[in-house]
Amino acid sequence: MKLALLGCGLLGGSLAAAWRKSGRADHVVGYDLAADRSQRAAALGIVDRAASCVAEAVADADYIALATPVGSMASLFLEVGRHAPEAAIITDVGSTKVELIHRAREALGEAFARFVPAHPIAGGALPGVEHASADLFRGCWVITTPQAQTRADALERIESNWTACGASIERMSAQEHDRIFASVSHLPHLLAFALVQMLAAQPDGSRKLHFAGAGFRDFTRIAASDATMWRDIALANRAALALELDQYRHQLETLQSAVESGDAATLERIFTEASRVRREQSFGTGDGNHEF
Amino acid sequence: MKLALLGCGLLGGSLAAAWRKSGRADHVVGYDLAADRSQRAAALGIVDRAASCVAEAVADADYIALATPVGSMASLFLEVGRHAPEAAIITDVGSTKVELIHRAREALGEAFARFVPAHPIAGGALPGVEHASADLFRGCWVITTPQAQTRADALERIESNWTACGASIERMSAQEHDRIFASVSHLPHLLAFALVQMLAAQPDGSRKLHFAGAGFRDFTRIAASDATMWRDIALANRAALALELDQYRHQLETLQSAVESGDAATLERIFTEASRVRREQSFGTGDGNHEF
Repeated sequence: MKLALLGCGLLGGSLAAAWRKSGRADHVVGYDLAADRSQRAAALGIVDRAASCVAEAVADADYIALATPVGSMASLFLEVGRHAPEAAIITDVGSTKVELIHRAREALGEAFARFVPAHPIAGGALPGVEHASADLFRGCWVITTPQAQTRADALERIESNWTACGASIERMSAQEHDRIFASVSHLPHLLAFALVQMLAAQPDGSRKLHFAGAGFRDFTRIAASDATMWRDIALANRAALALELDQYRHQLETLQSAVESGDAATLERIFTEASRVRREQSFGTGDGNHEF
Repeated sequence: MKLALLGCGLLGGSLAAAWRKSGRADHVVGYDLAADRSQRAAALGIVDRAASCVAEAVADADYIALATPVGSMASLFLEVGRHAPEAAIITDVGSTKVELIHRAREALGEAFARFVPAHPIAGGALPGVEHASADLFRGCWVITTPQAQTRADALERIESNWTACGASIERMSAQEHDRIFASVSHLPHLLAFALVQMLAAQPDGSRKLHFAGAGFRDFTRIAASDATMWRDIALANRAALALELDQYRHQLETLQSAVESGDAATLERIFTEASRVRREQSFGTGDGNHEF
């Protein structure tokens, strides 16, 4: 089966490597808006060949996987709608779903029935195709958000490709997906970016950062993420994110007045509940080899 | 040299193990408000003997190290002031300094000149003396905040004990210490507790947490910390923490209006600056064996 990979970063490169390793793709053509990325993917053997445009990449493809930042996907969908072979199954790895599906519906025409919206809950500390791994998805969730028009055979094929890579599938509505990941992914990224930028802008910011320890290191690891990618995500999921952000600001208001008034009971109640929940939490599907 | 360890948790246990390994203490007596903790420390060989009261622990001690949550230290200082041998050097590992030093000054009387306030920037994923390690401080900073009355020989001895364990020393004022750690430690802990408790209290909270990935895992790791310890820290450093919290809430207000109005430029500016700073940041002193 031939895979056209549109977007040759960490996640796209890992998808290509994983689908190839599990026998779900045997020929991969890569395209990227930045030609040096698809060429690096080719040099690393992650893709067999770098294509110079979408039309060239998707020719004869059985699968077309969109793995760019979500903000670039709308225009990619237009080109995919124009050039995709008639039987090709289209999928994506985007972190937001409602707006993306809306754009895909407008752009893909009849091919929308062969589009399977998907979101693998995986990532790595370091970006770029050079850190791609065929095992990235082992023990991870892949969320699919099929629509009324989504063809059952296309959905099953994409889901089966992912389970072959060691992932577990959960189907849900695009709305629920966006609510969940606004809470557990988009908001935390925004909070981490907000803290690092705030400290860096303080007059004594660099001295403060100089003495930061392991707690700060872990808390802010996601603040090293790609700014463009997360700008796109924040805007694509703005409604759900704004709701969470609003609730979080109220939570901080409560904590600030507890700190200022010396209200030990409120602090202890919130900290104790958080600590209990976090200690009991497990991550991923439990089948993985990730240090979750 | 005999060390009296008051507080037998992860940090205290690691201090005892590290000072012993580097030849700075050859006999350790442990005391804890919870007797089972000092007995576990004795069973593990971290302390040679569990004492049943402060007076018994500090008898004949050369060093007295306070390693309880900061909220318990005030009453410990009173007992130490009453029972410490005349030449004993007193130190602590507390995460806040201004209020703690104020309490020590009131409680210790003439022994205050032999009190060296210190804060090793180290910790572990798991609490308790069973996770104590003699190598915990390798490559870490230890901040000392000596006062005008602090005897130079006491200060040098404590600092030299820490460098013998692989740590690097930085002297600063207690005020600067508290400002720095309000920013890079106390605020992040409060933010992580706030997020986990908020999500857990939502109607669909447990379903949301079920799909959380590696980003959330790292961001909230510090929310598993001990609630009592962090309640004490938040209150002991309330002035500096409230200032940071206030500024952070303004930062979130800016981000929320950018998200709601679709202001891509503001989001990109803040995210890009954060990402650049975080990627360039190094942790610890660079000499350590920690994965910082």
